[in-house]
Amino acid sequence: MIIVMSPSASPEQVKHVVGRLEEDGWGAEVSHGAERTVIGVIGTGFPPEYPDMFEVMDGVESATRISKGYKLASRDFKPTDTIIDVNGVKIGGDKFVVMAGPCSVETRDQILGTAQAVADRGATLLRGGAYKPRTSPYSFQGLGPEGLALLGEARALTGLPVITEIMEPGEVDIVEEYTDVFQIGTRNMQNFPLLRRVGQTNKPVMLKRGYASTIEEWLLASEYILAGGNKNVMLCERGIRTFEPMMRNTLDLAVVPMMHRLTHLPIIVDPSHGTGKWYLVKPMALAAAAAGADGIIVEVHPDPDHAWSDGPQALTPANFEDMMKTLEVVVNATGRTLAVMTPATV
Amino acid sequence: MIIVMSPSASPEQVKHVVGRLEEDGWGAEVSHGAERTVIGVIGTGFPPEYPDMFEVMDGVESATRISKGYKLASRDFKPTDTIIDVNGVKIGGDKFVVMAGPCSVETRDQILGTAQAVADRGATLLRGGAYKPRTSPYSFQGLGPEGLALLGEARALTGLPVITEIMEPGEVDIVEEYTDVFQIGTRNMQNFPLLRRVGQTNKPVMLKRGYASTIEEWLLASEYILAGGNKNVMLCERGIRTFEPMMRNTLDLAVVPMMHRLTHLPIIVDPSHGTGKWYLVKPMALAAAAAGADGIIVEVHPDPDHAWSDGPQALTPANFEDMMKTLEVVVNATGRTLAVMTPATV
Amino acid sequence: MIIVMSPSASPEQVKHVVGRLEEDGWGAEVSHGAERTVIGVIGTGFPPEYPDMFEVMDGVESATRISKGYKLASRDFKPTDTIIDVNGVKIGGDKFVVMAGPCSVETRDQILGTAQAVADRGATLLRGGAYKPRTSPYSFQGLGPEGLALLGEARALTGLPVITEIMEPGEVDIVEEYTDVFQIGTRNMQNFPLLRRVGQTNKPVMLKRGYASTIEEWLLASEYILAGGNKNVMLCERGIRTFEPMMRNTLDLAVVPMMHRLTHLPIIVDPSHGTGKWYLVKPMALAAAAAGADGIIVEVHPDPDHAWSDGPQALTPANFEDMMKTLEVVVNATGRTLAVMTPATV
Amino acid sequence: MIIVMSPSASPEQVKHVVGRLEEDGWGAEVSHGAERTVIGVIGTGFPPEYPDMFEVMDGVESATRISKGYKLASRDFKPTDTIIDVNGVKIGGDKFVVMAGPCSVETRDQILGTAQAVADRGATLLRGGAYKPRTSPYSFQGLGPEGLALLGEARALTGLPVITEIMEPGEVDIVEEYTDVFQIGTRNMQNFPLLRRVGQTNKPVMLKRGYASTIEEWLLASEYILAGGNKNVMLCERGIRTFEPMMRNTLDLAVVPMMHRLTHLPIIVDPSHGTGKWYLVKPMALAAAAAGADGIIVEVHPDPDHAWSDGPQALTPANFEDMMKTLEVVVNATGRTLAVMTPATV
Repeated sequence: MIIVMSPSASPEQVKHVVGRLEEDGWGAEVSHGAERTVIGVIGTGFPPEYPDMFEVMDGVESATRISKGYKLASRDFKPTDTIIDVNGVKIGGDKFVVMAGPCSVETRDQILGTAQAVADRGATLLRGGAYKPRTSPYSFQGLGPEGLALLGEARALTGLPVITEIMEPGEVDIVEEYTDVFQIGTRNMQNFPLLRRVGQTNKPVMLKRGYASTIEEWLLASEYILAGGNKNVMLCERGIRTFEPMMRNTLDLAVVPMMHRLTHLPIIVDPSHGTGKWYLVKPMALAAAAAGADGIIVEVHPDPDHAWSDGPQALTPANFEDMMKTLEVVVNATGRTLAVMTPATV
Repeated sequence: MIIVMSPSASPEQVKHVVGRLEEDGWGAEVSHGAERTVIGVIGTGFPPEYPDMFEVMDGVESATRISKGYKLASRDFKPTDTIIDVNGVKIGGDKFVVMAGPCSVETRDQILGTAQAVADRGATLLRGGAYKPRTSPYSFQGLGPEGLALLGEARALTGLPVITEIMEPGEVDIVEEYTDVFQIGTRNMQNFPLLRRVGQTNKPVMLKRGYASTIEEWLLASEYILAGGNKNVMLCERGIRTFEPMMRNTLDLAVVPMMHRLTHLPIIVDPSHGTGKWYLVKPMALAAAAAGADGIIVEVHPDPDHAWSDGPQALTPANFEDMMKTLEVVVNATGRTLAVMTPATV
Repeated sequence: MIIVMSPSASPEQVKHVVGRLEEDGWGAEVSHGAERTVIGVIGTGFPPEYPDMFEVMDGVESATRISKGYKLASRDFKPTDTIIDVNGVKIGGDKFVVMAGPCSVETRDQILGTAQAVADRGATLLRGGAYKPRTSPYSFQGLGPEGLALLGEARALTGLPVITEIMEPGEVDIVEEYTDVFQIGTRNMQNFPLLRRVGQTNKPVMLKRGYASTIEEWLLASEYILAGGNKNVMLCERGIRTFEPMMRNTLDLAVVPMMHRLTHLPIIVDPSHGTGKWYLVKPMALAAAAAGADGIIVEVHPDPDHAWSDGPQALTPANFEDMMKTLEVVVNATGRTLAVMTPATV
Repeated sequence: MIIVMSPSASPEQVKHVVGRLEEDGWGAEVSHGAERTVIGVIGTGFPPEYPDMFEVMDGVESATRISKGYKLASRDFKPTDTIIDVNGVKIGGDKFVVMAGPCSVETRDQILGTAQAVADRGATLLRGGAYKPRTSPYSFQGLGPEGLALLGEARALTGLPVITEIMEPGEVDIVEEYTDVFQIGTRNMQNFPLLRRVGQTNKPVMLKRGYASTIEEWLLASEYILAGGNKNVMLCERGIRTFEPMMRNTLDLAVVPMMHRLTHLPIIVDPSHGTGKWYLVKPMALAAAAAGADGIIVEVHPDPDHAWSDGPQALTPANFEDMMKTLEVVVNATGRTLAVMTPATV
């Protein structure tokens, strides 16, 4: 941590800062510069509060942490890519994974039909929500346990591993029975009791970025899960909130290569929520692949006009098929191949 | 809902939209304008998904909901101010309430001493966290049940009703025993299982604005609680996230008079989290009062340099006292008076 | 325009709104719905102020414009793609253009060397700033006319058409002598005197998006130029400002396919300013191509460590060459080819 | 400047950084910590580009400037408040100034009538635009020179000094003849040629914050004017752009006390543009005073329904009078008094 005193700071103010540091057991190195005195504090494991705590002291101009707040998630800690095995589907290597399915599980026909349609067209995981976080209490809130059972049927039919959302710690036990990957949605990225709870399981977790969360907060959220002992964490960029009203969110694709520098965890992109409009999904899926993402998660519905949620951003099976064709060429252009289900998986 | 077709929309596209509306039982009124065809759909209770669903149909330029998504929270529904009684302290009338206390409950001495200090200086509710949502897993996470018990002691000592945070549905039962107001923090504004759960209790709830939530989303979140049957909801503006790095958040005070137009629920302001720096708390508390807020919630700590969390934004008791003096003058200037504890309360 | 009255609006308030509309010569169609009265105003050419003006009238809940504010820029007005010819280089068709060069013109050797290097590696326009908008008055402000002359030399040497920035109407005459495309930077997107002035010229203009401008504001800014008579406008996405501190800007690639729907104007992407870090330029350039952009503009410097401005985001010629190889594959994957200079150009 | 090397940085990478610093004549102090090597560079006057330039070098984790980029604007440089004298009206002392008038000068009657109305009710400067920056080319663009002349008449009639907007360097001469304060609007905060040009005059300048500008960028923009020799600069907060659609802007009142810490320049608040709705102007004006602003600038129009621009945010003279009454009480509560025109002024 580096503490910069203001030009007018008094010797007593410098002493107070150094004293407070020594009280906590840290050694402080004081440099008197041309205009300002700078205090360097060498060490690791400072309390996260430290910079702000010093920054408001009298005579202090700024205090800056120089080491990152996250450890287990950082590439410094683990230089090699984490590769997550979901029932034989590898996520994070030189394969590009496509997760697809409806926003919500609605009916048996809808989920089985969609699962088969996306499996036939190259998806290797099935998405579908049984517990839905909805902005309005008057919106469809998901089928709950009945939806989970239908996902189980769809998995049995197609062999596709399932990814589905959990919203509270109390749901983890029942969801764990049916899902292959826990999805934590954007509104729950900092639901710390939930993060702690899935950290105690062995199931892979896909942690979506909070729609107004910084990269560092996102990695710290993943750290909650990793610190609990669950190493199978993948990240998912799904758009952030900005001033632009025309799209549902602003898909921040530069986090893809940035995350590859900062962390060893795989990163998936969700162009459906990231744009909110089905006709933007294909170009943004291609862009995600070109940027180096480890995969995408997209919404597919047999009849988007009649979807119970998020219809506007859902692809039809035909649109999904069209996207997959160009996607494969772009994935290959970046030196990778589309993931396929191994016989063992099926 | 108003659906505007694009200038190049075909008659078939108009027909498709109208057909989809009629399929759901709505009557559509079609107006052919100079450039565009406009479809008005008269009625109430449209599914929240409706505008987006139509907006992506072929030939549609825009679809706009014209009625609000929230009902119980709106002033149309209930024109008179909601006044919440917390053990005799009235919130929402012509009184201005001051809630004060430390960010976290740390020790018996700290919480009892702070409670007495703020009670002596005009606070009428005691704040203090026992369950803490922290960005980093390596930060102090709160004392939990032990902290709740200490808050109970502080209430017994001073007579101050207590407000404390809950983070998950499973905590509601234990927190309910000790608190007089449930606080739902910014990261949990859209924790829908939690909103539903406190909606089933009779305790007042203070719902903080999500740090990137719109006014409409905030009112829809309050609607979850109201729809559950709990009518004692107050709102709390605590700053939103913007591009400005110098303050912790951007305190959006214009929501105070805007909320008074839109809703009957009281609105409180948190200048501590809203700025993140203790020296900005007093001017922003005064500004909140001038803008017409129903009260403030501020952090006070006997020794901010040694606080276990959020020290940078905590007032000392002396600073709190100084703030209270000017605050009273500004509150009076807006035709109101500071709330006091009634004998019945003590 | 649609005006929605609040449920409690009085007949007099409705009458006032209708009267105000009729005063301006508009016919109003009043529909009395279940809860609300809605006033439809059919026509085109409403003053831009209209919705806001009505929205604050007593009894009005909302007022919404249903036609777009821009005309000449819209695809409704001109359904076919605008293709701009810059000395034989076509921008906007099935070719993908690469503009490259240093942030600032610094020395004769630097600009001639860079121009040759990017020409040799596939660029078809040369970028380079002679007038620089700099946040600090203590930063290098550009070489001015001397820089323009050096750009002229570089053009003569390589045959590359030149794109360079103008900052004020008074500079248009001199810059016009040396440049092939006027670049209007992000801070000047709403410099209306400048937009009007370049609208009077015949030179193509590249209009960068304001770093906090909406899509609609951006198209309205282009409308200033188009309305002046200059039809050769291309747009450039260069990142927007968000809460994320780790990148210089958030590159909003979804505007690429969105713009292709809304407007006939070509759209270029600037991954250098859009990220601020050279190691993010290649993946974002590939992503821009995959998303369907009509080209990119990137910063290249022979020695980024010693660049006088924006060194951190500059590619070396070697990095540029590496990017170009994969870029071509991605461009081809989207059914297009890299632009080349025609003999006539050289 | 502090440069932090990543844990895996090689000795050669450290050497490269130090070499680059020494090449520019700086001394570097290298500290080898537990995990990271930190390079401190003591000195003043680093190029603004420095931190970013080092941050992208191999092996560097972060580079942080520890001294501010602005000098003349900082309170370190000039500890005492700047007080600006506008024809006898003092801005920046223990007086609170009220600037009022219409958005645009429309007609002789309108501007003379409004000027008299606001003078009679306690305003001490007259605002009014003759050159208008408008988002759409189809909006009213201001009366230009004719509007300036009308402002001159209004000044002669009422004795109120005038503040009006300039948009380009070429307008400075003519506007200077008629105005007492140059207003630089939000879209021109970083119009550097304009800043340089008004820096060469002796007239006071009110510099509005860019709607997406940080505090530091704003102070650097003021530095352009100060560095040109014009010391009479005041700042104006007028709201920033956020994700919230319900208000035109988000008025960031915490910048008021923050600016008082960082700079000696006076700070004015514009609650009209800051909210966009007339019914929010009074509470936000009171809040601005409570927060310690040196004054406000508000829009007043005799007939907002018929205003040629920004009617929705204009107060009627009656509403202005109502605001002034409470405003005086709040100003007094903060230990100050409303500015009055001295006989000399009139």
